[in-house]
Amino acid sequence: MGRKRLQETGDGRPTVHTVAARAGVSIASASRVLNGVGGSPETIRKVRAAAAEVGYVPNAIARSLQSQRTDLIALAVEDIGNPVYVEMMRAIESVVAASGRQLLVHATGGQVANETALLRRLAHRYVDGMIVSPIRVTDDHLAALVDSPAPVVVVGQLGADAPVDNVRTDSRAGVGLAVDHLVAAGRQRIGFVNGPLDTVPGAARDAGFRAALAGHGIDLDERLVEVGDFQYVAGRAAAERLLARARPDALVCANDLIAVGALHALLAAGRRVPEDVALVGMDDTELARMMFPQLSSVSLGSAERGRRAAELLLQRIADPALPPRREQVAPHLAVRASSAAVPDVGPLFVPAPTDPAPAPRTPEVTA
Amino acid sequence: MGRKRLQETGDGRPTVHTVAARAGVSIASASRVLNGVGGSPETIRKVRAAAAEVGYVPNAIARSLQSQRTDLIALAVEDIGNPVYVEMMRAIESVVAASGRQLLVHATGGQVANETALLRRLAHRYVDGMIVSPIRVTDDHLAALVDSPAPVVVVGQLGADAPVDNVRTDSRAGVGLAVDHLVAAGRQRIGFVNGPLDTVPGAARDAGFRAALAGHGIDLDERLVEVGDFQYVAGRAAAERLLARARPDALVCANDLIAVGALHALLAAGRRVPEDVALVGMDDTELARMMFPQLSSVSLGSAERGRRAAELLLQRIADPALPPRREQVAPHLAVRASSAAVPDVGPLFVPAPTDPAPAPRTPEVTA
Repeated sequence: MGRKRLQETGDGRPTVHTVAARAGVSIASASRVLNGVGGSPETIRKVRAAAAEVGYVPNAIARSLQSQRTDLIALAVEDIGNPVYVEMMRAIESVVAASGRQLLVHATGGQVANETALLRRLAHRYVDGMIVSPIRVTDDHLAALVDSPAPVVVVGQLGADAPVDNVRTDSRAGVGLAVDHLVAAGRQRIGFVNGPLDTVPGAARDAGFRAALAGHGIDLDERLVEVGDFQYVAGRAAAERLLARARPDALVCANDLIAVGALHALLAAGRRVPEDVALVGMDDTELARMMFPQLSSVSLGSAERGRRAAELLLQRIADPALPPRREQVAPHLAVRASSAAVPDVGPLFVPAPTDPAPAPRTPEVTA
Repeated sequence: MGRKRLQETGDGRPTVHTVAARAGVSIASASRVLNGVGGSPETIRKVRAAAAEVGYVPNAIARSLQSQRTDLIALAVEDIGNPVYVEMMRAIESVVAASGRQLLVHATGGQVANETALLRRLAHRYVDGMIVSPIRVTDDHLAALVDSPAPVVVVGQLGADAPVDNVRTDSRAGVGLAVDHLVAAGRQRIGFVNGPLDTVPGAARDAGFRAALAGHGIDLDERLVEVGDFQYVAGRAAAERLLARARPDALVCANDLIAVGALHALLAAGRRVPEDVALVGMDDTELARMMFPQLSSVSLGSAERGRRAAELLLQRIADPALPPRREQVAPHLAVRASSAAVPDVGPLFVPAPTDPAPAPRTPEVTA
């Protein structure tokens, strides 16, 4: 019994002890070689030959063989550095870790080809399932999602009523919340800095902006609309182009990275925020609260969407016969100093007080 | 031959065709069940029973069995949302993907117990190797690193001359670069906002700050030193505490998140940056360039350290007999508007120009 335990696993597969005995080296030496952490060239040669002869299988691989599970979940997003994905990733990681699995993160760069290739790789079962947040959805892509060879949950809009587990928000309505807020605050020349119109979020947010202005009976001045990319540098450049030809008294930005770029462009151009130009971002990431003034932003519930997507995926893995499910997270607006009628922190750059006092904090108001 | 190809892999293992035939269902149905993406309860029952009878093994698991590799690399960092880790992660992901492997990301929360547990899990060979960036290193932790059951590369300082592949920088010297720059600019009351002193980076940066002031013959006023955490909110609170009791004309912050918090605290207190208080962060992340004014920051080469760590790990996996290696990436200072003698973008909040013109960009100077 003792010898059997050492030399074989319960189902008869050889262990590191079997390999060490065959190679004529110590168990510690065999273990180090099998684990890839060292050994003389001669020891490495002997241990590898012995492992091949006896058919040694490392633990995790042997366990996968028994359970036919990898205990890995993949997440594919455009940019792992975008704070909206960071918050989604944190929420997903938390659910995945609680289930005893681990998260594998892919950065796709927003390329449809990369995402379709990842979906095809699922046929090799390198993970138990995948959460994907595509920013562009082509027909091919949709077909690959529907025919996915392993469980997939999509975070984001899907053009058709696709039979795929899906967690979405309503970013079109979200843009409307920003416009309603600015109109109520008396702003009259509301501009919009968007990401690419050929992306799902870009198209939805453009439609939302136009519909919201129309709803208030405001004619859109096209000079007040500019398109860049969903990144900081491109957002700053897009805001600079807009400010070079038009005089908005408010700007809605299609995500917080663009809004941070627009804030930089506004301050560098000498415009006061919010006195001259009120500013509202979108995604309500940590970044919005890090700015000075703090940015108002439309939350699209990225952490909540991530949490629900992870739960849907775990349920799908446990029960593949479930019908496709769709969940929706409602947007809401967090109003902060960048768009409040009265700045939260008083005038900027007042003379420093003679007696140092605790600095006032910027209150955060969530509407 | 045709039938053999369909019914068995080259080495005689059963395929989805074998399972479908045994279950009496179509290949498409068997495939969907085996991949966990659907099927009636009855089909699922039949296919699973057939798979168990014939000993079906999914592709990725079968491939691992042959190669004894998982083709996965793990990265363990404190906080996947900290921009310094995001930049490191992007660089690692790029090297790992180029090698045909995939990256698995763990967030440890900086807990030594979590990191030690991950190192123990390596014995199960769920990945081919791990890159870990510990912010606290205890004796137990160090022992776990040295005795790791799979290849490990450490990014960061290791207290002893540990026989572990290691990529480090010299953050102590990096703090010195910031102090030298501020002293050269004529600043006389240089404060320091640090992270916890019981962390490796906190201790090194504290020592660096004190040594640099001493090197310039400046007596340290302890009221100018405050400790928080390496996060934005804690950094802002720490800067507020410091500003409530002291009047620095410059602040060095132990990372960019703290520096962003300090910028917020300074502006909210009515101090001008850099006119009243010059500000220098550390890590030189994207965040530093997103601020207004843009933040000077000491680069510790996080992307470069990530890239080199990934290369060391791939080399170690390919050749376990390599001696332990240590690489060092030198810090350098990026000087921007937050500490320049003359602000890059002119006075803030000047009246808006009557004729809109393209907004000036903030030039970036790397010293």
